[in-house]
Amino acid sequence: MSASQAAPKVAVVLSGCGVYDGAEIHEAVLTLLALSRQGATVQCFAPDVAQHHVINHLTGQPDDGASRNVLVESARIARGRIAPLGDYQAADFDAIVFPGGFGAAKNLCSFAFDGPDCTVNPDIEQAIRTTHAAGKPIGALCIAPALITRVLKSVTVTIGSDSGTAEAIAAMGGTHSATTHGEVVIDAANKIATTPCYMLDATISQIADGAEAVVKAVLSLARQ
Amino acid sequence: MSASQAAPKVAVVLSGCGVYDGAEIHEAVLTLLALSRQGATVQCFAPDVAQHHVINHLTGQPDDGASRNVLVESARIARGRIAPLGDYQAADFDAIVFPGGFGAAKNLCSFAFDGPDCTVNPDIEQAIRTTHAAGKPIGALCIAPALITRVLKSVTVTIGSDSGTAEAIAAMGGTHSATTHGEVVIDAANKIATTPCYMLDATISQIADGAEAVVKAVLSLARQ
Repeated sequence: MSASQAAPKVAVVLSGCGVYDGAEIHEAVLTLLALSRQGATVQCFAPDVAQHHVINHLTGQPDDGASRNVLVESARIARGRIAPLGDYQAADFDAIVFPGGFGAAKNLCSFAFDGPDCTVNPDIEQAIRTTHAAGKPIGALCIAPALITRVLKSVTVTIGSDSGTAEAIAAMGGTHSATTHGEVVIDAANKIATTPCYMLDATISQIADGAEAVVKAVLSLARQ
Repeated sequence: MSASQAAPKVAVVLSGCGVYDGAEIHEAVLTLLALSRQGATVQCFAPDVAQHHVINHLTGQPDDGASRNVLVESARIARGRIAPLGDYQAADFDAIVFPGGFGAAKNLCSFAFDGPDCTVNPDIEQAIRTTHAAGKPIGALCIAPALITRVLKSVTVTIGSDSGTAEAIAAMGGTHSATTHGEVVIDAANKIATTPCYMLDATISQIADGAEAVVKAVLSLARQ
């Protein structure tokens, strides 16, 4: 089988399991579905670090006594088939995709707390830099484009239409392009595709549309 | 708006968040997606009880020191929009659907440990009995048909092709019909629709196909 016929290999980076302290579950699952339906093979990754905190998703309040690990919780979404992000090698994959959720802004970096001055988990920074340096595409949903911008700086992305977050993108050196449901912003020069998903008030069908669209863009960039 | 034009209202019953100790996340999310795409409005429920145990989904081993609540963990899949199952009233809904995962067999009943002699959570039994008595349809994915059979006994369902589980269905008074990916068994007299999902070795695309098919069957039964 020639390289052009082989199924593209895509890494999906999770940040826990649950919108308020981890990966947004609908975005993560619907990214995995879109990749499967569009013929990609997938390997999930997550950093092997403690979550910033645990949020009780029924009350919305922190569970102060609790501690959970990002890799272990992400394994729930991946049905156990997941590797520590430190094992990620850009050479082994055709693209990398980051679903959203507060985990992307709390566990993968500190954007939720520090805004444009946030720090980034070293394994995350390494994965983004090496993928970009290899000329391979990066997809990001929801708030995850802020993470990509913090690392790569002069990129064009979307987080939907929230003005405060758009200003933070600009403060980190990026260019923000406003979008609505299912729309994707493609930075062709940097091979970055982003879509807003739950950064907008959305139905789960609209999340599926966004995930399908961003995966289509990422796989198209991977073939270029 | 006449009743025939109103969006059907469907209750989705979750059993935690993660295949090995709770609701299977792909099945739950893809059920919610199928309901949204087919025009239903959804309310998630879960029993407000402790999980049987917590499984580390990276290692597959029990986390002996840990304790989690089924309703609180299910809220991760539902993005906080979930109610205790004790609040469920069959009169308020057109149908009820049970995604699978070990949670259905560990937290909603004890089938994973006790097989055909299993006990069923009282709120679960009440929800199944009152929905059935009201002549409204019940959908079940993966292992959840075993739970329905334990309560209603003489029903026809599928859990795929696993002979041990099929024998347990028979021992509980049910009739098992073997199926493969995306197929649905409809017990028209009892208005029960079931599909195997991850009871078979499956891709996430096949889970989406199964969820779409069982939701289509449930909504069709609801219109009859």
